[in-house]
Amino acid sequence: MKLTEADLKRFEEEGYLFLPSLFSLDEAAMLLAEAQAIYGQEREEVWRESSGVARTAFAAHTYSEPYRRLGRHPRLVEPVEQLLGEQLYMHQFKINAKAAFDGEVWQWHQDYGTWQRDDGMPEPRAMNIALFLEEVTPANGPLLFIPRSHQQGVFEAGHDLETTSYPLWTLDRETVSKLAQEGGLEAPVGPPGSVVMFHGNLVHASPPNISPFSRTIVYLSLCAVSNHITKHTRKEWIAHRDFTPIEPLADDCLGELVEARRARAAE
Amino acid sequence: MKLTEADLKRFEEEGYLFLPSLFSLDEAAMLLAEAQAIYGQEREEVWRESSGVARTAFAAHTYSEPYRRLGRHPRLVEPVEQLLGEQLYMHQFKINAKAAFDGEVWQWHQDYGTWQRDDGMPEPRAMNIALFLEEVTPANGPLLFIPRSHQQGVFEAGHDLETTSYPLWTLDRETVSKLAQEGGLEAPVGPPGSVVMFHGNLVHASPPNISPFSRTIVYLSLCAVSNHITKHTRKEWIAHRDFTPIEPLADDCLGELVEARRARAAE
Repeated sequence: MKLTEADLKRFEEEGYLFLPSLFSLDEAAMLLAEAQAIYGQEREEVWRESSGVARTAFAAHTYSEPYRRLGRHPRLVEPVEQLLGEQLYMHQFKINAKAAFDGEVWQWHQDYGTWQRDDGMPEPRAMNIALFLEEVTPANGPLLFIPRSHQQGVFEAGHDLETTSYPLWTLDRETVSKLAQEGGLEAPVGPPGSVVMFHGNLVHASPPNISPFSRTIVYLSLCAVSNHITKHTRKEWIAHRDFTPIEPLADDCLGELVEARRARAAE
Repeated sequence: MKLTEADLKRFEEEGYLFLPSLFSLDEAAMLLAEAQAIYGQEREEVWRESSGVARTAFAAHTYSEPYRRLGRHPRLVEPVEQLLGEQLYMHQFKINAKAAFDGEVWQWHQDYGTWQRDDGMPEPRAMNIALFLEEVTPANGPLLFIPRSHQQGVFEAGHDLETTSYPLWTLDRETVSKLAQEGGLEAPVGPPGSVVMFHGNLVHASPPNISPFSRTIVYLSLCAVSNHITKHTRKEWIAHRDFTPIEPLADDCLGELVEARRARAAE
């Protein structure tokens, strides 16, 4: 999996790449079933909304075989190695549910703002990859990106501890308005298996999900090994301290698991 | 302005018609400027969100010349006459702001549910027309429709007095989920001047607007004259009691106002 010159140029200018259907529907369906099983577990890595429904499962790559494989998937790891120019480690790994009817807002923020302030990550040489496990539509709380907002570094932010159950460094309205006047606003939507890769400084948000359809997305935060974090204030399963370079698996590492599970179900 | 046979068939099956750019950008811009002037007025017809920003201006066709004309516009009145088979009166007229950052949710509901319960409207022989005064995108709280949900009459509903400042008869989650499993979910998006006409029983909602762009929409609720309301529990400027048939104006009735204002500005 290699990005083209056009991809690299677009990423540099716009701050993100949308790759529809990078994974198959079967691969996405297996990961979704696994996510639902994880959400049913009572464990500290699973955070809930005020209503009690699951919001985020952290670090599933450390306790689930499908997610262990996803965390080393060449379709995700290799493009980011290409963009950052060195080997990577997993800084954070989460499965965000955005439940039907109850999924709450994520206010406007930059991911690197949190990594810098909370984790002491030296440079924005890390980025998020979003993998859609369910179809994302305008109706179920799509990710909203402000193109080109990654070009001006880290903006001032306030620590929002009130809007939802998850603390977040959020940008003020004046900054968001100015950036959106300049860069517009995009909401990549598409089928399960689609992927968005976005710069750590790209400003984004997502609205509540009032629809009857849930909208589960996996996020891998991949960081250049030489850029590892220096402050350990958050739980180890939120901001990992294992800086071992990721060795990508084979391209069919999830496909073979789909086949194995299918064969077992047919027995 | 006449709907085609294909339009009529689609409306009957799906419960709505989306007509992008039915009005010009100039016509929409004039109506938007007028709406903003109205929102600035302290009058009982202007309702506000809990934050204080304007949510809805009622009955602007009774105190604003551009909206008086819009309420008699042949591009809106004639298609609904065609669908309902007789002359119409204006049951309700509102301009909904959905302000940037602060615009609140409208929960899942049927408009005719309210007209029946609160106003004693005999039959669902009335319908809403939504005219976009600003671009509607996936990001700024688009209208969400459940296609074909108009075919099963009025569903049970609870009177929601808590979610927002506007009381609404809202459907339960089980019903919404079942209908969306059957009919899917659509979010018509498009430029200022676009129009959605939808059946009084079509189930719809709209999410909060977390974007930095406002999303103003005018709603005309047009009712067949013979189907006029029989209960007068709501304010006259919310549920009108003047059942005089609307006489449509000429197609350029707004265009000539745009020209007149432009000429005056150039003096």
